[in-house]
Amino acid sequence: MLDAGIVCHLGVIIDGSPVVLPTGYGRAGDTLYLHGSSANRSLLAADGQDACVTVTHLDGMVCARAIFHHSMNYRSAVVFGTPRLVTGEAGKLAGLQAVTEQLIPGRWAQARPPNRKELAATAVLALPLDEASVKVRIGPPKDEPEDYQLDFWAGVVPAALAFGQPEPDPGLRSGLAAPDHITALTRRASGA
Amino acid sequence: MLDAGIVCHLGVIIDGSPVVLPTGYGRAGDTLYLHGSSANRSLLAADGQDACVTVTHLDGMVCARAIFHHSMNYRSAVVFGTPRLVTGEAGKLAGLQAVTEQLIPGRWAQARPPNRKELAATAVLALPLDEASVKVRIGPPKDEPEDYQLDFWAGVVPAALAFGQPEPDPGLRSGLAAPDHITALTRRASGA
Repeated sequence: MLDAGIVCHLGVIIDGSPVVLPTGYGRAGDTLYLHGSSANRSLLAADGQDACVTVTHLDGMVCARAIFHHSMNYRSAVVFGTPRLVTGEAGKLAGLQAVTEQLIPGRWAQARPPNRKELAATAVLALPLDEASVKVRIGPPKDEPEDYQLDFWAGVVPAALAFGQPEPDPGLRSGLAAPDHITALTRRASGA
Repeated sequence: MLDAGIVCHLGVIIDGSPVVLPTGYGRAGDTLYLHGSSANRSLLAADGQDACVTVTHLDGMVCARAIFHHSMNYRSAVVFGTPRLVTGEAGKLAGLQAVTEQLIPGRWAQARPPNRKELAATAVLALPLDEASVKVRIGPPKDEPEDYQLDFWAGVVPAALAFGQPEPDPGLRSGLAAPDHITALTRRASGA
């Protein structure tokens, strides 16, 4: 569930109010890693405080005969815990590798690694996967027995995140084709 | 931005800790409506308290030559405010219509409306769109000048939520084809 996601939503309390921000993440063993700028207020605020990280996959729109029974097919994981900012360079690199490989498997070895200055400008947050709540809805709509005779269409419209064809950077060196780990994203999304 | 979304993430404080849950939403004028079961703890907790509602569209994976400059193209709206549970039946219906039409435009008139019992079992939360923060990233990666000569591929892999072919309910009355407002979802997603 967590391994299939791209974006999570991090919830923290800042000045007494909840703040929810989207960010990339990665999992390594029993730890969830989030990263961002070392000036990112939410990441800094989460250090040593209660936080909530939610990952949601929308799988389909569930159309029932009754408005009341409309729903979505989805998978969600809600992780609760007290994250910590990772301080050492080795730990930061491990966290960034987890995030990078989650987003684009195979990318870590095919790009220039962070240097010391870049590492200092990056905040990495580690959240132990101790407490999580996972919810799933699958399948067709469930209507009231007497509604099945109604003339309204019912069913599921499947939904999924899809990747399109890679768009090379305008400044790309000539002769550099998109490597396998990039084209694999598009293949994965189209189910091939 | 808000009108293009399907799922939002609602952040509230419950027992002193942040909780982030995915839910459907809709906009009508300057009000954002969220709905769920009247037993939904997050919706009830949000009534009259500070809350944060975030909508995120992932538009692409931004692959730079340097790990540090990897990013995502996205649009996000973060709405802060103090939502209120809608109490009257007319207000609830208006909120549910906004949510339904956001998810599946045209659906409200093509399904059985909620009855009194169903309305009572539904919680509708209204959040004024007074304070919101919108962020957008578009375009190709931005690398350090000296990295453009590296032999790593760089560019953007576009991403979008896509809808597949409608799957009729196994209990669907024979002769009921998917109506326009359903097939429109798939057409919209494929950009046709």
